[in-house]
Amino acid sequence: MVEGDGLNGLELRSRISGDGMLELSLREATVPEPAPDEIIVRVEATPINPSDIGVLLGPAALDAAEFSGTAARPVVRAPVSAAALPAIAARLDASLPVGNEGAGTVVRAGTDAVDLLGKQVAVFGGAMWAQYRRAKMTECLVLPEGTTPRDGASWYVNPMTALGFVETMRQEGHTALVHTAAASNLGQMLNRICRADGIGLVNIVRNPQQEALLRGQGARHVVDSSAPDFTAVLTAALAETGATLGFDAVGGGPLAGQILAAMEAAARQSASGYNHYGSDRHKQVYLYGRLNTGPTTFERGPIGFAWGLGGWLLMPTLKKLGAATEARLRARVAADLKTTFASHYTAEISLAETLQPETMRAYCRRATGEKFLILPQQGLG
Amino acid sequence: MVEGDGLNGLELRSRISGDGMLELSLREATVPEPAPDEIIVRVEATPINPSDIGVLLGPAALDAAEFSGTAARPVVRAPVSAAALPAIAARLDASLPVGNEGAGTVVRAGTDAVDLLGKQVAVFGGAMWAQYRRAKMTECLVLPEGTTPRDGASWYVNPMTALGFVETMRQEGHTALVHTAAASNLGQMLNRICRADGIGLVNIVRNPQQEALLRGQGARHVVDSSAPDFTAVLTAALAETGATLGFDAVGGGPLAGQILAAMEAAARQSASGYNHYGSDRHKQVYLYGRLNTGPTTFERGPIGFAWGLGGWLLMPTLKKLGAATEARLRARVAADLKTTFASHYTAEISLAETLQPETMRAYCRRATGEKFLILPQQGLG
Repeated sequence: MVEGDGLNGLELRSRISGDGMLELSLREATVPEPAPDEIIVRVEATPINPSDIGVLLGPAALDAAEFSGTAARPVVRAPVSAAALPAIAARLDASLPVGNEGAGTVVRAGTDAVDLLGKQVAVFGGAMWAQYRRAKMTECLVLPEGTTPRDGASWYVNPMTALGFVETMRQEGHTALVHTAAASNLGQMLNRICRADGIGLVNIVRNPQQEALLRGQGARHVVDSSAPDFTAVLTAALAETGATLGFDAVGGGPLAGQILAAMEAAARQSASGYNHYGSDRHKQVYLYGRLNTGPTTFERGPIGFAWGLGGWLLMPTLKKLGAATEARLRARVAADLKTTFASHYTAEISLAETLQPETMRAYCRRATGEKFLILPQQGLG
Repeated sequence: MVEGDGLNGLELRSRISGDGMLELSLREATVPEPAPDEIIVRVEATPINPSDIGVLLGPAALDAAEFSGTAARPVVRAPVSAAALPAIAARLDASLPVGNEGAGTVVRAGTDAVDLLGKQVAVFGGAMWAQYRRAKMTECLVLPEGTTPRDGASWYVNPMTALGFVETMRQEGHTALVHTAAASNLGQMLNRICRADGIGLVNIVRNPQQEALLRGQGARHVVDSSAPDFTAVLTAALAETGATLGFDAVGGGPLAGQILAAMEAAARQSASGYNHYGSDRHKQVYLYGRLNTGPTTFERGPIGFAWGLGGWLLMPTLKKLGAATEARLRARVAADLKTTFASHYTAEISLAETLQPETMRAYCRRATGEKFLILPQQGLG
């Protein structure tokens, strides 16, 4: 163990006051020396995921944000409507760290973890938008030879989510998948997994450019929801793949219901005889994202009675799948970080730039395929 | 076995032609002699359930119906829009019998069923809106001493549905229930079951009269969705009962989502610490009816991620529960047909009256608490 009094570094914090004001800032903090089973990681790369933005902003209105402070120590304030406060009562006046995942170099290690000193590791578990992060050994993945922290920063959220979709499919007795916002980093990853595993995948995208991108990556079924024949093409792809399980990142609007209706239409094509209640083939769509925060609407006539909609979250899913399954999935991710599970970034930014107006507006758009990587050791004033 | 050439009688038929015209009529038909394990029942009472109306009318527009024929042999014709035809392709040009359940007297019996001759039985399985119905012995329930066909006509759909709700609750790990349109015959029955079994039940009704009716029947939690404090009262009732499973007969509109949101609000009251994704307590609402045929809408912000919506149907549920469970439920119904499982009827009508304009408009309103009983041996011209 390397002796010392801890390490000083910057970390990004989000706080919503009891009277409804969000404040984002960088603060200098001391990371205490690690316990015997802990390490301290110098964080070198950490991505901005949609789930991070949820913690970062809460229900605050970015449009009304005020930017102050200095370039090196920016401060962002934005109001939260009084109506939104009860739902977040438990976080009010608490200073929250941000950042689900990232990677870097082990610079301190507890007595049980000395073998990790100097190694490059990926970490999951929050508080990664910081220069240093104390972590349990068990929260880490040692990066394979030749894999950098940039390669390993997005090792958990997207890879485990995409693999989680496939495991959910198997566990619930489905044999093929539908995915929306399919041109996203996550969608491209799911396409690579399904191609590798021989799983039928219907990719729903929102424009011809996204369709071209996925077809260029070997996707067989790509359906453009902006095309006039969307419903017919979707139904044909569902009939061909037999997909009865969908994962929807959009959430709001009619899309999830349209998928259920097309699944039912595909099921009725192969059904024999008339059933007033529709086909008895169970059709399920999980909403895992909120790209559209408006209300979700669906018609029941076209979907029959054998259907389900539900929320889907990674952590409860992994808990249900069990530790052995999670270990198997992690090992697969580690082996293929630079291929199947590679992420692509729109830009690399510093911790301070994370709180600059244009940058914030860019990543808060959550545009499909756009993804930012924070390099916490860069751009320090 | 009683020898003969079958029995002649009237039966009500529904047919939708390939070019989109619904025709309802009575026809004279010969019910053939029973096989060894079959009986012929002279049907004396058979109810009109919402599920029967679905088969009767399909997607036809009753507002545009034309009534012809005679009082004894009425004929109803109503158009079906071309857009609705593909979904019912499998029933086009087929003459369908109607009527899920009913009761009467055994007037013919196969060699294995002679013990049933002269007995009063209840039957489930379709084609009950008729004067005679051939049935397998196993489709019948012998009515207990002192129980008439009128008492036993609604022995299956509502009783098994209400008991099915409770079985689903137990199987999926919930401990209390929410029910909408709770002043219906089914709702009153569910209230009696939950009182008998000590199960917490939150009854959602649509006006103060319905609230008074259920309170008069000993219901503890009755919430009026037309009251200004609906959400607050609902949330308090959910918190007190711990109900995390709802059965919704309305289907369309915001109600199912409001129930999920109130369940989540109740869960957050007892949660410790902040979870950006909402409570981890699973909340489920099943849509089993379509009193509102409009689109279903819900907001995801107030419901978190641990939620599900789904269709619910009696027959697949019973299949999943297994034959032993179904037998247990049937026995319970038989024992309590005149108390817990009693139905109340707005009017008793003949087969011919079932196709009269005013009568049809009345039962097609599907007004809560209104229910019609057909007496097929009455009013024969």
